[in-house]
Amino acid sequence: MKIITVSREFGSGGRELGKRLADALGMQYYDREILTALAEQTAMDEAYVSKKMEQGNMQHFPITFARTFSYGGGENNTTKLLAEQQKLLKKIAEKGGDFVIIGRNADIALGEYHPLNLFVYADMESKVNRCMAREEGNLTAAEMAKRIKQVDKGRKKSRELMTERAWGAKETYHLCINTSDVTIKEIVPAIAEYAKIMLGRNAE
Amino acid sequence: MKIITVSREFGSGGRELGKRLADALGMQYYDREILTALAEQTAMDEAYVSKKMEQGNMQHFPITFARTFSYGGGENNTTKLLAEQQKLLKKIAEKGGDFVIIGRNADIALGEYHPLNLFVYADMESKVNRCMAREEGNLTAAEMAKRIKQVDKGRKKSRELMTERAWGAKETYHLCINTSDVTIKEIVPAIAEYAKIMLGRNAE
Repeated sequence: MKIITVSREFGSGGRELGKRLADALGMQYYDREILTALAEQTAMDEAYVSKKMEQGNMQHFPITFARTFSYGGGENNTTKLLAEQQKLLKKIAEKGGDFVIIGRNADIALGEYHPLNLFVYADMESKVNRCMAREEGNLTAAEMAKRIKQVDKGRKKSRELMTERAWGAKETYHLCINTSDVTIKEIVPAIAEYAKIMLGRNAE
Repeated sequence: MKIITVSREFGSGGRELGKRLADALGMQYYDREILTALAEQTAMDEAYVSKKMEQGNMQHFPITFARTFSYGGGENNTTKLLAEQQKLLKKIAEKGGDFVIIGRNADIALGEYHPLNLFVYADMESKVNRCMAREEGNLTAAEMAKRIKQVDKGRKKSRELMTERAWGAKETYHLCINTSDVTIKEIVPAIAEYAKIMLGRNAE
């Protein structure tokens, strides 16, 4: 099984890079939205299963995905949410199959699978420009910069709850990619080539 | 003109990566040894030129390379040596032609040429193994680890004399490559592909 984790600064284009990599390499792709939908689906499945089990016509059901990714927020729920996310990630990995996963500290959660860990970053100007281009919102560049910093501060903090391997410290990743002034699409073939080499070494 | 600078931790295989990259891309290759030889050659050339000029039969000679890279050492000479190195690097760039250069803080010295800046690093175990494999010396692994730390401390310090952009800080580089448990040769095609894309964007 081959897994690529993509950690990234907000606005660095890491998600786009991960999606394009998955497409280029024929791998499944997971990001927060997909995982949330999966968790919700699972919650429904579980309700269904519970009902069925009560009715006594099911012996066993293997899926025990985390119930939800969409807690209301608040610091108190963060640790619980993180734990549930990690559980869901492991379930996905246990199912087998190659995939790319964005964020979720998957490099830590899935460490036992020896994923290829990428970190995507960029200078602030580039991140602001990328965010302004893709959002219709009314934020000024200064407000956007502030938001970017806030989001990444949150990522850093939530990672600290899980591991001592600091978010964004290059030692933690196999490859750190600076996307300042780079069009994501143009570098995908090279990164895909790199991933093929690195993942091929542990080919099953 | 296309320039790739390779900064690296001692024992990370950065020099080998740079040499192989240069070969793969058909670029000239410079490292400390070559620059030293070049500086010495130039010193001889300059002596020759001086003599000729005294004889009155030369109007002009464009090369004013730094006289030497091989100062006896000592902290007092470090700043002067660095300045001479930077001057030599600029002379090389002014000559034109594509090249890969290892170390020498060339990413800073040649900033005006917008080089592609790589940083190569690895975990200590991997660096020790790489150094032990290539050297016949009598150092133990622990002594080698100590030496690696000393060398990199020196690199960090000499960089601090030149710039506030910290040695090894990923923000300073386009791509940071972790070579722990990686055979340099196997990743060269992917990095060459990446370099072609990145350098091609500013093609002359």
